Amino acid sequence: NKLSHIDQRGEAHMVDVSAKPQTERVAVAEGKIIMQAETLDMVIAGNALKGDVLGAARLAGIMAAKRTHSLIPLCHPLPITKVTIEINPEHALPGFEVQATVKVTGQTGVEMEALTAVSVALLTIYDMVKAVERGMRIEGIRVLEKSGGRSGHYRAEK
Amino acid sequence: NKLSHIDQRGEAHMVDVSAKPQTERVAVAEGKIIMQAETLDMVIAGNALKGDVLGAARLAGIMAAKRTHSLIPLCHPLPITKVTIEINPEHALPGFEVQATVKVTGQTGVEMEALTAVSVALLTIYDMVKAVERGMRIEGIRVLEKSGGRSGHYRAEK
Amino acid sequence: NKLSHIDQRGEAHMVDVSAKPQTERVAVAEGKIIMQAETLDMVIAGNALKGDVLGAARLAGIMAAKRTHSLIPLCHPLPITKVTIEINPEHALPGFEVQATVKVTGQTGVEMEALTAVSVALLTIYDMVKAVERGMRIEGIRVLEKSGGRSGHYRAEK
Amino acid sequence: NKLSHIDQRGEAHMVDVSAKPQTERVAVAEGKIIMQAETLDMVIAGNALKGDVLGAARLAGIMAAKRTHSLIPLCHPLPITKVTIEINPEHALPGFEVQATVKVTGQTGVEMEALTAVSVALLTIYDMVKAVERGMRIEGIRVLEKSGGRSGHYRAEK
Amino acid sequence: NKLSHIDQRGEAHMVDVSAKPQTERVAVAEGKIIMQAETLDMVIAGNALKGDVLGAARLAGIMAAKRTHSLIPLCHPLPITKVTIEINPEHALPGFEVQATVKVTGQTGVEMEALTAVSVALLTIYDMVKAVERGMRIEGIRVLEKSGGRSGHYRAEK
Amino acid sequence: NKLSHIDQRGEAHMVDVSAKPQTERVAVAEGKIIMQAETLDMVIAGNALKGDVLGAARLAGIMAAKRTHSLIPLCHPLPITKVTIEINPEHALPGFEVQATVKVTGQTGVEMEALTAVSVALLTIYDMVKAVERGMRIEGIRVLEKSGGRSGHYRAEK
Repeated sequence: NKLSHIDQRGEAHMVDVSAKPQTERVAVAEGKIIMQAETLDMVIAGNALKGDVLGAARLAGIMAAKRTHSLIPLCHPLPITKVTIEINPEHALPGFEVQATVKVTGQTGVEMEALTAVSVALLTIYDMVKAVERGMRIEGIRVLEKSGGRSGHYRAEK
Repeated sequence: NKLSHIDQRGEAHMVDVSAKPQTERVAVAEGKIIMQAETLDMVIAGNALKGDVLGAARLAGIMAAKRTHSLIPLCHPLPITKVTIEINPEHALPGFEVQATVKVTGQTGVEMEALTAVSVALLTIYDMVKAVERGMRIEGIRVLEKSGGRSGHYRAEK
Repeated sequence: NKLSHIDQRGEAHMVDVSAKPQTERVAVAEGKIIMQAETLDMVIAGNALKGDVLGAARLAGIMAAKRTHSLIPLCHPLPITKVTIEINPEHALPGFEVQATVKVTGQTGVEMEALTAVSVALLTIYDMVKAVERGMRIEGIRVLEKSGGRSGHYRAEK
Repeated sequence: NKLSHIDQRGEAHMVDVSAKPQTERVAVAEGKIIMQAETLDMVIAGNALKGDVLGAARLAGIMAAKRTHSLIPLCHPLPITKVTIEINPEHALPGFEVQATVKVTGQTGVEMEALTAVSVALLTIYDMVKAVERGMRIEGIRVLEKSGGRSGHYRAEK
Repeated sequence: NKLSHIDQRGEAHMVDVSAKPQTERVAVAEGKIIMQAETLDMVIAGNALKGDVLGAARLAGIMAAKRTHSLIPLCHPLPITKVTIEINPEHALPGFEVQATVKVTGQTGVEMEALTAVSVALLTIYDMVKAVERGMRIEGIRVLEKSGGRSGHYRAEK
Repeated sequence: NKLSHIDQRGEAHMVDVSAKPQTERVAVAEGKIIMQAETLDMVIAGNALKGDVLGAARLAGIMAAKRTHSLIPLCHPLPITKVTIEINPEHALPGFEVQATVKVTGQTGVEMEALTAVSVALLTIYDMVKAVERGMRIEGIRVLEKSGGRSGHYRAEK
């Protein structure tokens, strides 16, 4: 069985990483939220003023990254050393694109932290905009890049 | 400004729901995770045995629904009365489709709880399968149905 | 299948309690920790002075009762209205007996809250005394009494 | 003994509020952070641009209000229906004044929620500004107003 | 006073472990839940199908291990590197035996993490089976083995 | 911009500490709660007996220190190795003075952990005494001392 979290008995467990070296690891993830063009304009207009929708989404994503191991059952607790989240409007969607970068010096990677940060930032945008448009969709959450582990540097295809 | 969480000063706040009646509210959300056909087969095969990948994803989603208000900054804490999560393999994707139903008797809706449950269930599948395939993508997270609020019954278009 | 948390598909889910009436519910649980007579004497002596071992255990148990729904996957979040914990030395064990009482006005019972309070209070005693004796054992955690639900008043046999 | 959380045995416990009526309760609390005039100017200047220091403090305060019962050992969990936080620069201090308003329909008051929101908002300002000035002080955290309980309307003296 | 968490003033505090070396530490704990023979059979039968009662208990135990330091007041936060939980039916009890193994490279041991994992796994079984039998009892929670600390290898007597 | 948590875009982020060395860091913070002389006497009298008001405040402060990174949005999670809290009555205030000391071997300081411990200990005293006196005020929360970082040893002026 190649599913690392499933042991010989077929049972889920937290993988033993104690023998792996401490290395600097970085992961980048992205995701999008799709809305109508007028909704996007309204958020951009409001945000230009005070930054509160996207500011709240960024903060919620950063805080969620720190709680990844309490949300995802088999994730290891990790002393992450950096989280940044960038949110950019994309008129072509129309909607917002969220990208999160997480760093740690540790024995296992941080792609789950980056994916969790992206997901919660997107959910926060949904929450703050849903009174205006209920039909928004969250799309394309994936790992863009990952480095520092045994398996080398991973970069998603465009 | 129609963004309910942004006040006249342009600042984010938690909406006052104290004057709204207590009604029974239901929300249904869905989302998908896309993987290669062989990965899907491997998860289905392992799961037939003991159910641990999808069982873990369901449980993580249920637990996350209960923590929605601590993840999404402006969500109200709600005494939810039911959460169910269904995960089905879809060979056409190929991948899994996750659907969450949440109920509450309360003063505000539970679509954020349903969306959070779906998101965390999908992230948990990603986590448990990532050793086999790193390029999985999470797609199509959205509200399918919502009832019990002032704005009536909402049903997403197919 | 009579296991209420397992549905027709054999899958775990959070039971729908939305149709149940709001009633006042009380649950009482107990448990013990067994240690050597000298260890018991030492804790009693230290505690007579400032109360900190048993005081910490009581507080940890109360705080854990409030977090039951985030620890036990299928428990409902409940606005509990009372928690008390009594800890008494029992020279006959020798050790301590912990009893927790939890109250709520709600749609489901609080025996899990009472059992969780007892368990965490006992674990806290273990933690604070383990430098003196590692061989302590936690025994006899059970529900003593439960009232307010559809199934009537339950009282454990002596 | 008039300390409501201490019982006849002299032990801390969570007060039984199950017999109290559900009423609408509001609490307002305030607090200040004192800094040098140049530090205040720098935060105001940066904030005019994007709002991120004060926006982060507001959000952290709102999220902390929801977690009050998990921080303060004997607080009851409460389904709060509103939290707002206002932060204003005060050149006379110099520094910022934070005011939080919390509402609930429940059996006990929300002054601890309002005080916790104020405290965490102030700590967040400290955190984000500490690289510029380490000597900031948090002062004057108190309840300004409280209504809806048995003890009537309380208003602090100026 | 030999109670390590109680200082000279008789007050509880978190022990200073900063001068201890980082070593690999392992702890194993166990516990049991006693039920009637028919209840045991019913759980085994249901579990053979999908694994959801014991699967949920294992997951809840793993997640609780990661939260030990937030439940047990004086425990240190630790970046645990492995948690596994085994649950076996024992017809002689009748009931289930739970065993948890936790690993860390750190300055203090993980017996509290192992004991917490066992306790919460047992409480989860209780929760999911309580509709069938309310009189179940949790027994025999103890440390089986502990290694890697200053005090050498500890192994409980049979 | 000298605000370390605000990047070039004017957005809040978690500072990258991955390049900083692991050093032993200590922070000491203090704060006070002011009450009437009779209230102080009542708390001291009750506490002499069993220690539960101040014992609860100490414990709540220690537990809050461990949760600092989940309360303060941009704080790093840190494996703290020591927390002690001292609470002393001060008849001159009249009230209590709280002092917290936190230690870590890590890449960033622990002043936020010490300030959070002080704040939550003070809020806990307020909570337990508020039935007797609602007009208490929390004052003078500040960092007293900080060492181990790049910026050298900081000591607040008296």
